[in-house]
Amino acid sequence: MKVAIIGLGVVGYGAYEIIRDELAPEIEVKYVMDLRPFEEIPCIHAKDINQIVSDPEVDVVVESIGGLHPAYEFITASLKAGKSVVTANKHLISKYYKELYQLSHETGACLQYTPSAGGGIPWLHNLTRTRRCGAIESFSGIINGTTNYILDNMTLTGAAFEPTLKRAQELGYAEADPSADIDGLDVQRKCAISVNRAYDAVIAPEDIPTAGIRFITDEDIAAFRSKGLVCRLICRGSRKDGKVSAYVEPTLFAADTLEANVPDNNNLITLVGKYVGRLSFYGQGAGRYPTAHSMVEDIVDIHMGWVRDPQLTGAAEVDNSAQIHRYYVRCENLSFLGDLVEAKLGSGVVTVPVSVGEMHRIASTRLAQGEKLFFAGFDE
Amino acid sequence: MKVAIIGLGVVGYGAYEIIRDELAPEIEVKYVMDLRPFEEIPCIHAKDINQIVSDPEVDVVVESIGGLHPAYEFITASLKAGKSVVTANKHLISKYYKELYQLSHETGACLQYTPSAGGGIPWLHNLTRTRRCGAIESFSGIINGTTNYILDNMTLTGAAFEPTLKRAQELGYAEADPSADIDGLDVQRKCAISVNRAYDAVIAPEDIPTAGIRFITDEDIAAFRSKGLVCRLICRGSRKDGKVSAYVEPTLFAADTLEANVPDNNNLITLVGKYVGRLSFYGQGAGRYPTAHSMVEDIVDIHMGWVRDPQLTGAAEVDNSAQIHRYYVRCENLSFLGDLVEAKLGSGVVTVPVSVGEMHRIASTRLAQGEKLFFAGFDE
Repeated sequence: MKVAIIGLGVVGYGAYEIIRDELAPEIEVKYVMDLRPFEEIPCIHAKDINQIVSDPEVDVVVESIGGLHPAYEFITASLKAGKSVVTANKHLISKYYKELYQLSHETGACLQYTPSAGGGIPWLHNLTRTRRCGAIESFSGIINGTTNYILDNMTLTGAAFEPTLKRAQELGYAEADPSADIDGLDVQRKCAISVNRAYDAVIAPEDIPTAGIRFITDEDIAAFRSKGLVCRLICRGSRKDGKVSAYVEPTLFAADTLEANVPDNNNLITLVGKYVGRLSFYGQGAGRYPTAHSMVEDIVDIHMGWVRDPQLTGAAEVDNSAQIHRYYVRCENLSFLGDLVEAKLGSGVVTVPVSVGEMHRIASTRLAQGEKLFFAGFDE
Repeated sequence: MKVAIIGLGVVGYGAYEIIRDELAPEIEVKYVMDLRPFEEIPCIHAKDINQIVSDPEVDVVVESIGGLHPAYEFITASLKAGKSVVTANKHLISKYYKELYQLSHETGACLQYTPSAGGGIPWLHNLTRTRRCGAIESFSGIINGTTNYILDNMTLTGAAFEPTLKRAQELGYAEADPSADIDGLDVQRKCAISVNRAYDAVIAPEDIPTAGIRFITDEDIAAFRSKGLVCRLICRGSRKDGKVSAYVEPTLFAADTLEANVPDNNNLITLVGKYVGRLSFYGQGAGRYPTAHSMVEDIVDIHMGWVRDPQLTGAAEVDNSAQIHRYYVRCENLSFLGDLVEAKLGSGVVTVPVSVGEMHRIASTRLAQGEKLFFAGFDE
């Protein structure tokens, strides 16, 4: 099988190495395409996408340039030419999910993107495999390593948010502009991809109510610790009576749960299957070789036929009205919560059970007014 | 695809239900075979195995009667007739691994046994998938729910071993004769199967040094707790420089590790891959529907071609001489340990680093003399 790799960045180059060292000659890189020369790579260095998609020998195009454009143009050109596509690009997959699937259906090409949600963890593969024999009742988990590093370190050391974020940036876990991680947008995209895969739905990331950890303080963490609780940024999805629920929010777990004990920048993602019950998958959600490994697994899945076409049932509306639990809420003035307050905790309060939809609406209003509100749901 | 289910016990009947409710008519149960009538099942009730294996329409035979005989005869007759086989029978698979594989190779039939090691957890599936793209450097984990229930409950409540075992029996987690669980034989078999699958080796269960938890006391547990340690029964396997290591022993984990926080009768099994690093898989290692689900997943894998033939490289010798760590050891008279003692801990001692091979030899000698010795390795 012949492969073309577009983009030889951290992950793309890693995928090249794994194919070269583990899978050649059964799977071979025939083309690479990158602005840099990479003269050590003994294959055809493509100048444009047409050179790749017009070669009938190419079976799979690996997109690893990231971003929306020209990644979108490269992927659609490949699918239109009947080439299967493998990508880790969560932004692109979550944004163009329906369109890309329709394209792949039309031409019979495969579209695989396991590393886009879970990095090195075979989460989407196992989600797909499990649902063949019974519905996925719900899923949830830690699917962003940067925020887990920050929350885990704040919990262990008592440090404040800003220096911990800075340390994460020094370690290369967080970007110079950390918004996508700390505001939950990265998790939101992965959540959308997981919902779509679990339920053959087509929901857009922006339809998922999402809260991040930008305003969490060491005082919040100390209050949680005083109650034996540990904070993690969590995505959740479920389907019941035809309604899809999905949301992203900081969540408080008892200290002896698996989630509370996920160290550093690792991920732990869980599904609850109709028959199999809870299955959790733990590992590196990012990083050169874990992500590249997952990408190459997708290529081998295409090679061996370990793929399954989704049946898109069309757009689904996100409805979180039936998801109800207590919240910790903290901001300067909490009077707007009125009757919802059940107890004080640290500088914040614990609410009575509130629907996820309502809590996110309340918080959005306050955040839009510039208040540094932080809230976290109880895992209950 | 047509399936025959031999044995409609807890798991076999569960598999029948899942196929009926989730997969028919694409996958259909054409035969069942059981000593009991099960008149509600609308298919052919086979009187003997020949009726099944002589029917060219049957693609897959599910063996769920357990035990070595006549399960062995049924499986070999099926494979010889070119029927694929799915089983959860760890005793049989670990004992006849090489022979059954050779048979399946000769006739082109598939032999799938994911539920035999991990129950509902897709451990063997993911082990197989991961190693396609890079070696499995090691694996380890909690792969027996009964002993995890006992150890977890002793740790949480401070209760003694005997009443906790009794409670496990009342809950249906432990057999009336609990030896296979508490002496580690169940783990030993699953460890052999995992080694064989990870390394294309052929090792027999009895070649794996194995220690159980029969003689653990609440005093041992209290001593571990005083050091922030939690005891779990663990299997380990690895390959380095062509040497295969494999052993089963109680192991002491820091309280904030995933292993220490696996509750009740759950399992957590981990691999370390060359590129992907650590991946862990958590779930129910036993139980009707989890195990039946895993069995049906194997059937669907055969149906969809999601299978991979192992390359048996022949027998491997188990060599644990390079595996070295400290041990907790406790028995009436510890003088035989001589210079190996580093410190006291509770009623026992902590040794200097000792090879796994040596520690298991020492312990076996003492146990054979009727001493109630308990030992546990440090996770280091």
